Amino acid sequence: MDKWVYRFDEVDQAEAALDNDWDQVRGLLGGKGANLGDMSRIGVPVPPGFTITTRACNVYLANDEQFPDGLTDQLDAALAATEATLGKTFGSADSPLLVSCRSGAKFSMPGMMDTVLNIGINDAILPGMVEAFGNERFVYDSYRRLVQMFGSVVMDVDDHAFERVLTEARAAAGVETDSGLDVAALSGVLERFKEIVKSETGQDFPQDPNDQLMMAIEAVFKSWNSDRAFAYRNADGIPHDLGTAVNVQAMVFGNMGEGSGTGVAMSRNATTGEPHLEGDYLLNAQGEDVVAGIRRTDPIAKLGDDMPEVYAEFDAFSRKLEDHYRNMQDMEFTIENGKLWLLQTRDGKRTAQAAVRIAVDMVEEGMISTDQALMRVSPEHVDFFLHPQFNVDSKAAAAAAGRQIALGLNVSPGAAVGMVAFDPDLAQEWAKDGKDVILGRPETKPDDVHGMLAANGIVTSRGGRTSHAALVARQFGKPAVVGAHELDIDVQGKTMTVGDVVVNEGDWLSVDGTTGEVFLGQVETKVPDIDDPWLTKLLGWADERRELDVWANADYPSDAERAREYGARGIGLCRTEHMFFEPERLPVVQRMILADTQEEREELTFSLLPYQRDDFAGLFRAMDGYPVVIRLIDPPLHEFLPSFEELVMEIADLRIALDKTTGSADGDALNAEISAKSEMLERVESLREQNPMLGLRGVRLGILRPELTRMQVRAIFEAACEVTREGIDVHPEIMIPLTSHVNELKRQREILEKEAKDVMAEQGLEVDYKFGTMIEIPRAALTADQIAEYAEFISFGTNDLTQMTYGISRDDAEGSFLIEYLSEGILDDNPFFTIDPDGVGQIMGIALKKAKATRPGIEAGICGEHGGEPRSIALCHELGLNYVSCSPFRVPVARLAAAQAAIVSK
Amino acid sequence: MDKWVYRFDEVDQAEAALDNDWDQVRGLLGGKGANLGDMSRIGVPVPPGFTITTRACNVYLANDEQFPDGLTDQLDAALAATEATLGKTFGSADSPLLVSCRSGAKFSMPGMMDTVLNIGINDAILPGMVEAFGNERFVYDSYRRLVQMFGSVVMDVDDHAFERVLTEARAAAGVETDSGLDVAALSGVLERFKEIVKSETGQDFPQDPNDQLMMAIEAVFKSWNSDRAFAYRNADGIPHDLGTAVNVQAMVFGNMGEGSGTGVAMSRNATTGEPHLEGDYLLNAQGEDVVAGIRRTDPIAKLGDDMPEVYAEFDAFSRKLEDHYRNMQDMEFTIENGKLWLLQTRDGKRTAQAAVRIAVDMVEEGMISTDQALMRVSPEHVDFFLHPQFNVDSKAAAAAAGRQIALGLNVSPGAAVGMVAFDPDLAQEWAKDGKDVILGRPETKPDDVHGMLAANGIVTSRGGRTSHAALVARQFGKPAVVGAHELDIDVQGKTMTVGDVVVNEGDWLSVDGTTGEVFLGQVETKVPDIDDPWLTKLLGWADERRELDVWANADYPSDAERAREYGARGIGLCRTEHMFFEPERLPVVQRMILADTQEEREELTFSLLPYQRDDFAGLFRAMDGYPVVIRLIDPPLHEFLPSFEELVMEIADLRIALDKTTGSADGDALNAEISAKSEMLERVESLREQNPMLGLRGVRLGILRPELTRMQVRAIFEAACEVTREGIDVHPEIMIPLTSHVNELKRQREILEKEAKDVMAEQGLEVDYKFGTMIEIPRAALTADQIAEYAEFISFGTNDLTQMTYGISRDDAEGSFLIEYLSEGILDDNPFFTIDPDGVGQIMGIALKKAKATRPGIEAGICGEHGGEPRSIALCHELGLNYVSCSPFRVPVARLAAAQAAIVSK
Repeated sequence: MDKWVYRFDEVDQAEAALDNDWDQVRGLLGGKGANLGDMSRIGVPVPPGFTITTRACNVYLANDEQFPDGLTDQLDAALAATEATLGKTFGSADSPLLVSCRSGAKFSMPGMMDTVLNIGINDAILPGMVEAFGNERFVYDSYRRLVQMFGSVVMDVDDHAFERVLTEARAAAGVETDSGLDVAALSGVLERFKEIVKSETGQDFPQDPNDQLMMAIEAVFKSWNSDRAFAYRNADGIPHDLGTAVNVQAMVFGNMGEGSGTGVAMSRNATTGEPHLEGDYLLNAQGEDVVAGIRRTDPIAKLGDDMPEVYAEFDAFSRKLEDHYRNMQDMEFTIENGKLWLLQTRDGKRTAQAAVRIAVDMVEEGMISTDQALMRVSPEHVDFFLHPQFNVDSKAAAAAAGRQIALGLNVSPGAAVGMVAFDPDLAQEWAKDGKDVILGRPETKPDDVHGMLAANGIVTSRGGRTSHAALVARQFGKPAVVGAHELDIDVQGKTMTVGDVVVNEGDWLSVDGTTGEVFLGQVETKVPDIDDPWLTKLLGWADERRELDVWANADYPSDAERAREYGARGIGLCRTEHMFFEPERLPVVQRMILADTQEEREELTFSLLPYQRDDFAGLFRAMDGYPVVIRLIDPPLHEFLPSFEELVMEIADLRIALDKTTGSADGDALNAEISAKSEMLERVESLREQNPMLGLRGVRLGILRPELTRMQVRAIFEAACEVTREGIDVHPEIMIPLTSHVNELKRQREILEKEAKDVMAEQGLEVDYKFGTMIEIPRAALTADQIAEYAEFISFGTNDLTQMTYGISRDDAEGSFLIEYLSEGILDDNPFFTIDPDGVGQIMGIALKKAKATRPGIEAGICGEHGGEPRSIALCHELGLNYVSCSPFRVPVARLAAAQAAIVSK
Repeated sequence: MDKWVYRFDEVDQAEAALDNDWDQVRGLLGGKGANLGDMSRIGVPVPPGFTITTRACNVYLANDEQFPDGLTDQLDAALAATEATLGKTFGSADSPLLVSCRSGAKFSMPGMMDTVLNIGINDAILPGMVEAFGNERFVYDSYRRLVQMFGSVVMDVDDHAFERVLTEARAAAGVETDSGLDVAALSGVLERFKEIVKSETGQDFPQDPNDQLMMAIEAVFKSWNSDRAFAYRNADGIPHDLGTAVNVQAMVFGNMGEGSGTGVAMSRNATTGEPHLEGDYLLNAQGEDVVAGIRRTDPIAKLGDDMPEVYAEFDAFSRKLEDHYRNMQDMEFTIENGKLWLLQTRDGKRTAQAAVRIAVDMVEEGMISTDQALMRVSPEHVDFFLHPQFNVDSKAAAAAAGRQIALGLNVSPGAAVGMVAFDPDLAQEWAKDGKDVILGRPETKPDDVHGMLAANGIVTSRGGRTSHAALVARQFGKPAVVGAHELDIDVQGKTMTVGDVVVNEGDWLSVDGTTGEVFLGQVETKVPDIDDPWLTKLLGWADERRELDVWANADYPSDAERAREYGARGIGLCRTEHMFFEPERLPVVQRMILADTQEEREELTFSLLPYQRDDFAGLFRAMDGYPVVIRLIDPPLHEFLPSFEELVMEIADLRIALDKTTGSADGDALNAEISAKSEMLERVESLREQNPMLGLRGVRLGILRPELTRMQVRAIFEAACEVTREGIDVHPEIMIPLTSHVNELKRQREILEKEAKDVMAEQGLEVDYKFGTMIEIPRAALTADQIAEYAEFISFGTNDLTQMTYGISRDDAEGSFLIEYLSEGILDDNPFFTIDPDGVGQIMGIALKKAKATRPGIEAGICGEHGGEPRSIALCHELGLNYVSCSPFRVPVARLAAAQAAIVSK
């Protein structure tokens, strides 16, 4: 005969019968039943009980809602065992055993069926219970709850009927909450509940505890086929034939006097990770008293004073559970008359700091491997150490002072402080003036994006986790809280109201995107310590484990120094054009662009050489011993010139001013200015392009203006020679941007080699350099076999590669249709955030394979924002790149992500 | 012993010795020697002679410049045979045999070594020759030429020394040309030439004819290793070990009296293709007299009157040569004392019309196969039938009236007439005013491109076939003549001078890019007849032969009708946005774009439906029975609005005007206008994009504004139902533009199917339709397997696909770096003209393979300009597309090109 019922302490039998396959055990007993069994068998005291299998459910449903043969007998035996364990009897008036009845499928299906608690109470048992608990009100309330839960869940009575009775009772008693109702009132409520059951169902509320239990079990079985369960499974892709198990468990009570109590605790400190119990408890109380905050809780340590043995026992179980689950545990417990029961345990939530420390400590305690530790910490945890967070004390003080005005959805992490603006234009204006701004809106639309970008943080009163505000904020890394319903934002009136508090435009707000809290005023922020010893150790393990090297993008020596400090082992991208934008250089650059003759052009170009040489020398010094990839000038030349619209407007203003001028000297000056600006306008217009991203930039500039390439190459080699003399070990890699055809590379390499040879001959030194190219145009990727004939290294510029492969201009799309695409689910991910594996990833794979066919040892990396994004890093690992290069602040994140990629792909 | 010398009539021996491999024969005897042999053996009378093999040359060069053993004997024997054939004797004073000596390598190497003519003249022979020719001046001149040629080519005397003597002699005689020198003068020149040889080389000019011949032969052998030959071979990739053959051939003379003559003739009419001899001849004349145009020539038909037997013989040989070479022949002949000699034959150049007729006639005469006929006609020949050309009579009249002012390089074919402008801005301005313009420049630069585009044709006085002007003109299909050195173009003075003629800006010019001629005034043009019966027949064969179908791009019913007339079997691209730009619709479109509410937007969108329905119905009627691919709206919305820059300028101007206004009514009006324009500016700015090509357009519009898709789909289906009722067989294919992700297609297909179903239900009709997409974004190509799940057809938009795969914005690049890239040889071809096989071709191949993996029968085509370009068509054939779609005017060209692709790939 089939075994339909397993006591929690019989889980080993189930496992043995199922090939020791835990997944099958979860299939048979459900997730909750299997876990209760698991806790039970390692000797943790869980309130006794048993699980009716999913198989029993399936037979019941298939067999015209008849219990399978033998189920009732097995159930009686299991119940008897439960009674024996506790020395209580189900249905007894003297020492009554009460049980709960819960569904438990293989996969969690929240809201599929409510729990029925307190099964076993009836009119006859009531007096005995009052005596046992010494708390008449509690017992009446427990009975009232049973009738209400059983009535609505098992007997299908509309819960509103019960709630209406309670509302009337509260009104009659003149109290606000149910807890204000006294025994007499509750007694009246109980009678009316029973009447409702009778009138709604035609049946009395069942007085036989066995009837209560059997009806509850059947209700759980039937709930498997309810409409909402069906819909849930469809949505989640859960098969419809699994069935649900039923868990029947003894109720234990922490409110049976001073020898009883209840609490929640973490096996380690969830904020700092320190390795000792941390939690709250209350003597003579129910679990909900601890959670609701009605009574002031005591720290768990006080349990050590109140009941030393119980505390010691709990501490030991806590360590046992950690050992078993190899993770920090979040536990609920109840002490009933001196006896400790653990009701639930699960992996505990923790802060980033705690996550890192616990992972490292557990390795050192021999509990987990370094690989497990590396997988236990998320890249976001590491990121936490690099960005401002609210100071915990300052936040607590603000909360204590009543300055927390809202709790919304924590959709984009980080701390932001600023003056609130309710209009995106104003936010942008203030930000331009150097002010810190928080943008507050009821909800956001694409028109608001410029204000969102200008703000330090965003708060909205409407919208969910996939709202426009949430998507944009995450995308741009702006801390944001959305759907803070407490806030009444009046954009016209320029105020935000929360209860009595009126926040005016310009008032300070502090927004915690990590937690969803919004505070009035300025909460202090701090940057956590990157030198945290546990983090340092963890990242050390990551460095040993990872196969991808991690380099950084740095344009200035100070960036390079920071990158090196954060663990970068090379510079993967130095954008040389940044050096052209420096205020003292820009006018020279502009004259160079506009020069009429080749001689003038060359002269002005080479006048920039000393600046570039110094920049490069500084980078080389900072990266002593490591490679430095220098990209030759990339952007369209008109980026260095004034904007067309501004010039038109300025000229119009000048002409109006001229018209008003009477003094001829002023007039002459104005005329001269108009003429200069008009000339500039003409040049700007002639350089203007319809699609500058695909226009005259990158290597195309180097081909049309070879003097630019020559000047930059000379600056690189002169700098390399200079620092070599200082004893620096220098490895420049010269990178050509925007290559689409191998011939571009061939030409540039000729120019480069001649110039390099000249400088090395002049200086009498040899420099160890490489020549290579960005792969950022699809054609370059598709012809990487040809490219590799001239390139010793390639670096994927995945931002431009995404723009061209996807046909999307990032600047235009991110404020426009891309948001719509993400919120409509047309795209799952922003391809500028995570490399699109099907398109861009595929073409990267094609390129790498072709490049290696020509030059097997070719160095290949990725530079650009994707290089610091964990899923993109995993893709780079799979493709077999040599390194990722990202912003210095992302280097620690990338080190961990690279290690995780190596672990996952092993 | 090796055979070093082959008489022309011994070519069969050579062939037999060389495995009957004609390529080896050419290797041994050189190209010229082999061809003389070939003519000779089929019985065509070529002046007798012989070839000294390349092997002899190689032995001579390897063996310290010693003739190989046996060569001299073989040479004597061959010379004796030549003497015997003609009854003349080399070195005889009575009946002297003169010979020419020419090099002839396997591959043509023009300019490697000059010819030496008239070998065999000396002082002793001179009197006998005078008697034989009866023309003392000619004989002296022949001797003078021998000494000059022999001196400079064989004896290394600087030719300038000879030319100086001639210059002095002309001055002394007071004549302009050498032909003005009389016998006495020439006699003096001859003596001074001999003195120069003596003084420059220390040797007398050799009097022994045998010495002359042997020295000439050695000079040819040595010339193989000359610097210029070496450089030529390096440039052309010809191996250095081939050696050159030497051809020694009897000289024949057409100026030996009235029984002699010379001429050139084509075996068929080179202008019309009519199948009869066509050419010019002169009695008692040398070949150069015919070519130089000094004497008025007679038509070849007159030879039939003058010497009927010789004419009949020539006509027969002409047909024999045609039969042998299976092509129309261009022949040179000489008649010496009644004996006909053919000096040369080669495939004749011909007009497009003649090419087509000759190919078709030859098939019908059984001379060539239809495949050969199809390969014999070039796509450009077919193109000729579709574009204006100058009327032959009108051109002849202009030439006769002395209006041909220049002959430059014919770099871009076609006829153009217009008023000449010397400034690109002016050209653009005139063109905007609807004037016909010719742009005249000394040479062009990228700054001039807008003027070139505005002009009907281009003429420059400088530059070659790869100059900027030539490249741009070809690229844009503008007729152009470059390097017309006769023209002195004064841009500042706004005049163009040719000799005495001064052409002013605004004067009419006619430019023939097909021939390089430039005429003053307007020459009549005409469009050749596409209904030419031979062309019709040829294209019929092409249709049978080709595997690619040929469709056309047509936006209007009139285009579709023309396309069908030209042979298109479907519409591959109807661009629906053109319908939005019509003057009566544009204001509605603008209001639709700027509408504030969704209701307003939908209402305005659907108000366009009747127009679109009528457009589609017209197309369907024109293409009865054939598929019509309709692309939903594609361009960015701001293209329908006023330009941002213009608005900025207009507002600036209005502000200045306002500033000057005194009247308050005027001021109010101006203020209102400023306010309206400013509002429009704001809307335009909000829609403005940095890279509109990669912005909000194509399917992205359809996703964000689904009402656009609904309206267009409804219009298509309503139109389809309407024409179905008229008995039209309609096959609409609805095409989504700019797809990058399969989900875009999935969404649009849902919208489409619902709307289509609704219309079909309303109308009670079923429409046979397809749903598909453009593949114009690299990602769509790379994920074509996913795309094909929703697309029943794909159409490559190779213009955008090239832009994105290559990372080049066509509009920006073609006036800028792309020209530089082409003229610098970085790119061999403009990728917007011919599909780039390595990049775009590769990704098309990937897409097609993936699409077929998902949907084996998927219909695949190409729309856009490449679809009418022969090399791109060949690529499409290789890839296995179903059809190419091109502009109606390119359809006949595409039909031929598709057939040629099928023939070549067989």
